[in-house]
Amino acid sequence: MAYEFYYWPTIQGRGEFVRLALEEAGADYIDAARESEGVAVMMRMMEHAAHPPFAPPFLKDGETIIAQTAAILLYLGARHDLAPKDPVAGLWTHQVQLTIADFVAEAHDTHHPIAVSLYYEDQKAEALRRSAEFRQNRIPKFLDWFETILARNPSGGAHLVGNGLTYADLSLFQVVEGLSYAFPKATKRALADAPHVAALREAVARRPRIKAYLASPRRIPFSEDGIFRHYPELDG
Amino acid sequence: MAYEFYYWPTIQGRGEFVRLALEEAGADYIDAARESEGVAVMMRMMEHAAHPPFAPPFLKDGETIIAQTAAILLYLGARHDLAPKDPVAGLWTHQVQLTIADFVAEAHDTHHPIAVSLYYEDQKAEALRRSAEFRQNRIPKFLDWFETILARNPSGGAHLVGNGLTYADLSLFQVVEGLSYAFPKATKRALADAPHVAALREAVARRPRIKAYLASPRRIPFSEDGIFRHYPELDG
Repeated sequence: MAYEFYYWPTIQGRGEFVRLALEEAGADYIDAARESEGVAVMMRMMEHAAHPPFAPPFLKDGETIIAQTAAILLYLGARHDLAPKDPVAGLWTHQVQLTIADFVAEAHDTHHPIAVSLYYEDQKAEALRRSAEFRQNRIPKFLDWFETILARNPSGGAHLVGNGLTYADLSLFQVVEGLSYAFPKATKRALADAPHVAALREAVARRPRIKAYLASPRRIPFSEDGIFRHYPELDG
Repeated sequence: MAYEFYYWPTIQGRGEFVRLALEEAGADYIDAARESEGVAVMMRMMEHAAHPPFAPPFLKDGETIIAQTAAILLYLGARHDLAPKDPVAGLWTHQVQLTIADFVAEAHDTHHPIAVSLYYEDQKAEALRRSAEFRQNRIPKFLDWFETILARNPSGGAHLVGNGLTYADLSLFQVVEGLSYAFPKATKRALADAPHVAALREAVARRPRIKAYLASPRRIPFSEDGIFRHYPELDG
């Protein structure tokens, strides 16, 4: 039975981390909120499910509903060989993913530092301040951590964990793509000091299923409605 | 062999969610950074570990180091009967914990909406705006979600998951304690609409091991150095 995947139908957002895993796995899935009536169905499930998601994305596998991006990837990773079978290595993969989630939340807050209920324009002064901090301190700090993990991987620097692709590699690819869209100048500078991260991004983009996905209409373009938004005044 | 737990020695912070689980489990642990030289050891481990933590807290169990609060609790929950054995219920518990983590991050950002590298006083104007949003929209939204989960639990509304205590219950207790310290007026109002959450908080506080812990010197007081800070101007 196909997975039903639920997320806002017009943005990559947090859902994209799950879409990339489903695509790389070659999993049978429906991007359910992109079907007609899909958003209404999604909203009803959030309201009425026995285990209600706090927010999209969420995945329905038979009767099981799983929300929280990192938890969905934990679930999919074990089923589709996108995480090590060894429990310690599996938990390490998950820990890397949770750090990616923290990074993504900070990237979001660069344009919404005050309130998700307000427009960017209503918090632009604060966004300018927060973005400067993000560019100068946070992007380098996070990328340095990923670079260290890659460089320190005893199986070689091609993957974050072990010697095979994991969902964490896919997610790091997506973060670097998003940062490069939102903060092209700052990200280019930071990547110059993170060659393993830059190489991982390129390697993921070349994987046949990912390459086909990125070229397909299933890949929604980046935009100023998503998590990674390009406001030139926030880059520098 | 005792667990070695590492976190900043003078604040509750994110480490407190782990301390509460260790205490309720009656686990043998050392709060390692509170020993002499402990912080220096913690910093060296973050620098040199094969799997370096991005930030404290982290737990050392023999040769395994686990960071990220929710990942540590996932690990401890399975070993100390603080989570259901059933995989679907275990993943649901983790999902609740990840939503608590999101809530905690938002609580932190009320006093640091711009940069962790700046003092509160240097971002107070932004903190006033962000806290108003947090009080008016976010505290009610999160507490309503926890209230719904408790009310909808088929095993009764005493626990978030199933009919026994989980680490998620301990963490929700800590969040409500923290919010009540930081935003006493706003939290009192919100709890009036979340009777199951209020009852869970009281029930956790009465558990013998938690009660003994809270009365001990091991429980660090709340303060304006932690995640939950009481700045009266941010409450209302």
